[in-house]
Amino acid sequence: MKLNIAVLPGDGIGPEIVEQAMKVVKAVTKKFNHELSYEYGLTGAIAIDEVGDPYPENTHELCMKSDAVLFGAIGDPKFDNNPKAPVRPEQGLLAMRKKLGLYANIRPVETFESLLHKSPLRRELVEGADFVCIRELTGGIYFGEKGRKDGGNTAFDTNTYTREEIERILKLGYEFAGKRNKKLTVVDKANVLESSRLWREVAQEMAPNYPDIKTEYMFVDNAAMQIIQWPKNFDVMVTENMFGDILTDEASVITGSLGLLPSASMGIHTSVFEPIHGSYPQAAGKDIANPIATILSAAMMFEYAFNLMEEGKIIRDAVAASMTEGYVTVDIAEGESFKTSQVGDWIAEWVEKS
Amino acid sequence: MKLNIAVLPGDGIGPEIVEQAMKVVKAVTKKFNHELSYEYGLTGAIAIDEVGDPYPENTHELCMKSDAVLFGAIGDPKFDNNPKAPVRPEQGLLAMRKKLGLYANIRPVETFESLLHKSPLRRELVEGADFVCIRELTGGIYFGEKGRKDGGNTAFDTNTYTREEIERILKLGYEFAGKRNKKLTVVDKANVLESSRLWREVAQEMAPNYPDIKTEYMFVDNAAMQIIQWPKNFDVMVTENMFGDILTDEASVITGSLGLLPSASMGIHTSVFEPIHGSYPQAAGKDIANPIATILSAAMMFEYAFNLMEEGKIIRDAVAASMTEGYVTVDIAEGESFKTSQVGDWIAEWVEKS
Ligand SMILES: CC(C)[C@H](C(=O)O)[C@@H](O)C(=O)O
Ligand SMILES: CC(C)[C@H](C(=O)O)[C@@H](O)C(=O)O
Repeated sequence: MKLNIAVLPGDGIGPEIVEQAMKVVKAVTKKFNHELSYEYGLTGAIAIDEVGDPYPENTHELCMKSDAVLFGAIGDPKFDNNPKAPVRPEQGLLAMRKKLGLYANIRPVETFESLLHKSPLRRELVEGADFVCIRELTGGIYFGEKGRKDGGNTAFDTNTYTREEIERILKLGYEFAGKRNKKLTVVDKANVLESSRLWREVAQEMAPNYPDIKTEYMFVDNAAMQIIQWPKNFDVMVTENMFGDILTDEASVITGSLGLLPSASMGIHTSVFEPIHGSYPQAAGKDIANPIATILSAAMMFEYAFNLMEEGKIIRDAVAASMTEGYVTVDIAEGESFKTSQVGDWIAEWVEKS
Repeated sequence: MKLNIAVLPGDGIGPEIVEQAMKVVKAVTKKFNHELSYEYGLTGAIAIDEVGDPYPENTHELCMKSDAVLFGAIGDPKFDNNPKAPVRPEQGLLAMRKKLGLYANIRPVETFESLLHKSPLRRELVEGADFVCIRELTGGIYFGEKGRKDGGNTAFDTNTYTREEIERILKLGYEFAGKRNKKLTVVDKANVLESSRLWREVAQEMAPNYPDIKTEYMFVDNAAMQIIQWPKNFDVMVTENMFGDILTDEASVITGSLGLLPSASMGIHTSVFEPIHGSYPQAAGKDIANPIATILSAAMMFEYAFNLMEEGKIIRDAVAASMTEGYVTVDIAEGESFKTSQVGDWIAEWVEKS
């Protein structure tokens, strides 16, 4: 198979972790005799510095002609706490989501036995937790009309959803639930928001088409509590953009393995695979960052973008092996630790030899 | 002093827990020679059933002429998951907030040593956590323009904030921080929302007027993580209505003592004191519900509405004594447990005798 991917390393530790993931991607494609073609593109703060735009037009063109995008991380402290900066890295992220039509952000929430002691939750609550958060990513208050009135003294944002947007993401939610434990939790605030009432209406219309799946409705404030109290009760959770931003981050920390979790953003034109952690500027260039989340994002890429399940599995097995054998970076090492590049080499080699 | 209060028991366990709090209020006013005048009003599902309105006009008039409102809980399962019901109990809540100008919801997040084992968090993370969440309660997306377009197939909600609304709540935040550990965390989403950018602008203008207080800015997604990971780092957190709905509920469960936490909603016309837990319909009428959160809400009423600090403290001491001596309801009892009414009697008597 011909695999045509765009590689956007971004800022901070982005380049080093993406480099490791690319080692693994190359090992897998070689092993399975795929034809790999890839090209690098600029994005994030570095793209602002170099060309004045966090998601430059030629990066967009590169993504548009790719079957999948492997993404590192973006963000630079010099833009932090400065909401008035004329151009900011996250604008690039939002532009990318909108222009590529990345309507669904998918985050598996999984625990790793060897990292459970790092979870802020009591072990018995979180051990075995295994669910998927699906966040709508191109609608809602992120992209609605916003602005100022009264000489700047009143500010507004509009949260808008159409039936089509809601149907599209719920359909994906049902597909995931159908392949998993047959439960879909639709999170909204239908007791207050009109947009949430439309979400619930649409869900109630669609639910009978999936008779083997239990549809559950939950208010967002309740969901924020349930994620901490009973994470094992979730199977697939689906929600709108803003609620998803908050809940998926909350859900990711309960595992104790924030630095290990991958994500996929499924799009109309292509899809993007990236670690959920940030650009971690303090660690940039030090060869100490943990590459596992990016490597697991590459596994998701094989599975979701190319439907190459065996290829995804071999990456997962290699990552599991590195953890079992303690061949890991300093953030999760119990004893000896290894460099970012060493872990990348080890995992790529494991794949080749397996 | 003349204490003029409105009592709104509401639905489910509301009446029984409010009855216990009233026993304690009477004991305190007697002990300190205050003159107590109070009147009961209808609200919630029961008000819908009786007069077709969850916040009837005469209840509103009663609140308007009171110096403080003691509130139970509202909500009835027959309205759940039915966002299309023409009148719902929570509309009464929202109407009350708006009409009484209850702009600030204040929730102390405290742990009780004897309940730490019920926290979903590991003990060492949460032990000693002690912060206050201040949620803006009459603005934002709850009260902005909302509706449908395209024959019902597009729904929208508007999140609006004015400079005055933001200044008012931040001022309260700074006052609280000044009396506590001198740190104010302003939670927003200024990297995406225009309203949040106004929040941050106003905070940045006000901060220099409070030189002894550290102002910290935090994105809402990050706050959702920090509450679980490092709850002890917070002192006073202030945020907008929708984010506050989610974060205050999240914050309340980390203590393991959700059923014990009180709240205050400070208003222009009067203020309202209520437990943060719900109407718990399954337990209604069984004399098993825990009245402590409502009794502690009465303590907040003495302190916040009447500035009677000693009176508040005696209630807190009585509650602490009931817990130390194990005179508690079944939900938190280790061994023998007591009825709602027995706990109320015990605490009121402790106050009288102290
Ligand atoms: C950087 C920011 C705009 C972004 C978001 O809010 O979507 C981030 O928090 C995320 O979740 O990917
Ligand atoms: C019932 C609902 C409208 C309400 C809210 O969202 O404000 C509740 O969740 C709360 O926090 O008091």
